[in-house]
Amino acid sequence: MTAKRVLAIGGAEDKENECKILKKFVELAGGDDAEVLIMTVATKEVEETIKDYRRVFRRLKAGRIKAFDISMREDTASKRGMQLIESATGIFFTGGDQLDIASLLGGTKMLESIKQRQCNGCVIAGTSAGAAMMSKSMLISGKPEESPRFGNVEIGPGLDFIPETIIDTHFSQRGRCGRLMTAVAHYPQDIGIGIDEDTAILVNNGTEFRVLGSGSAIIVDGGPMTHTNLADLEHGELLELHDLSLHVLPAGARYDLRKQRPILERRKRRAAA
Amino acid sequence: MTAKRVLAIGGAEDKENECKILKKFVELAGGDDAEVLIMTVATKEVEETIKDYRRVFRRLKAGRIKAFDISMREDTASKRGMQLIESATGIFFTGGDQLDIASLLGGTKMLESIKQRQCNGCVIAGTSAGAAMMSKSMLISGKPEESPRFGNVEIGPGLDFIPETIIDTHFSQRGRCGRLMTAVAHYPQDIGIGIDEDTAILVNNGTEFRVLGSGSAIIVDGGPMTHTNLADLEHGELLELHDLSLHVLPAGARYDLRKQRPILERRKRRAAA
Repeated sequence: MTAKRVLAIGGAEDKENECKILKKFVELAGGDDAEVLIMTVATKEVEETIKDYRRVFRRLKAGRIKAFDISMREDTASKRGMQLIESATGIFFTGGDQLDIASLLGGTKMLESIKQRQCNGCVIAGTSAGAAMMSKSMLISGKPEESPRFGNVEIGPGLDFIPETIIDTHFSQRGRCGRLMTAVAHYPQDIGIGIDEDTAILVNNGTEFRVLGSGSAIIVDGGPMTHTNLADLEHGELLELHDLSLHVLPAGARYDLRKQRPILERRKRRAAA
Repeated sequence: MTAKRVLAIGGAEDKENECKILKKFVELAGGDDAEVLIMTVATKEVEETIKDYRRVFRRLKAGRIKAFDISMREDTASKRGMQLIESATGIFFTGGDQLDIASLLGGTKMLESIKQRQCNGCVIAGTSAGAAMMSKSMLISGKPEESPRFGNVEIGPGLDFIPETIIDTHFSQRGRCGRLMTAVAHYPQDIGIGIDEDTAILVNNGTEFRVLGSGSAIIVDGGPMTHTNLADLEHGELLELHDLSLHVLPAGARYDLRKQRPILERRKRRAAA
């Protein structure tokens, strides 16, 4: 069986220097033999975005680099688009608005085709909006700089590349902890994953992930929650939540998505002073 | 025995409208019979700050309103200052820099005198820096918009009005969750309390508190933590933390500081639609 691999990036990944994350994407897609497909469905700045990613994927020595844009739902019926997906070994969703991705691709044959390609070993990557849409429950918007309140986040169906999760991006950089807690209060069956900028989670077969890049992924788990007042509130009222569980996972750390637990590994100790 | 009461405010408390928090302070200090002492030790803008608080405490009908500034350590030997503290029924520490309060008042007879007054029923309040200094371990500074890293926060001794805590302020508004997690990783024996703006915790005898105001207090508890890599890191390296416990406590919610647990109370349910 071929591994299904998903790379969800918290936005603002390094494109100038070591490019750790994008390099990993190109490597997973096959390096010299890769056919990378840039999908700009989330962005309004199609040409600039394609140009930027073409440049960096070329520098990282991806075999072939293609691009396809979807700006209306009928674009998903494009024969050229379907052919590009058929031959891609790595599909990269750019940033922009995750609602564009979910509303234009959701329920289409093109999405089915992408999922089929994934089963055949094609790696699916996305940054910012392109990562947010990967969860089952998709964070659409929310007020980050607010106390957690009923209804302070908008959540809709994502494209479910990573089951039973809610993904947030630009996490530490935009102070989004409160918004992720609010999201998890509304969807306690899903694991909240906040991914920092220039940081990614690499999901293997939907069963576990490893963190890479220069920041961390923060996990907010509503499973252990012993109290929530959510059902008693009107829209806009303040949430009371007890015993959310929180994990901070830096590059190298791993998480078991089935057990919903971080994977504990003994590391080298720092030499004593 | 007289109750020792501490009111720690997350900054930017309402001074124009209902003034819920400041009204509570005046009430606890004795209302018409109160003698409120404004302590501007944290701020550089002494005159404006005194004027602002005088205006609001007058409007809230505090009996007498006095003010005292400390800008050098020798000011703490001031006879007038000691007399004002002796007669105060409510002492209010303004915002500014918490390091000013801790470094100028720490270890002084004046601080002893304030603590003595507290034992005799005088309520001690502080906002922003005036709240941060109240914990045993005092958050001095930190980068909020950063992944949690070893040494990313500066912590020093606070004046310990609220034992075994680390207090952060402007919490949701400035996205300080990562910085409080970092602080708790360094001081896991202390309970991290992040107080939102226009929100306060009213601590009773150091044993429990109740939240009041328009936002929430977020508790980060390092006690249940099952893994930390802190001792293995060099300065600036990323923290890995498993199973921090997190509570979101809105106005009305209570927390037991001895048991280090939120107090669960059954509330009225919302009427079914």
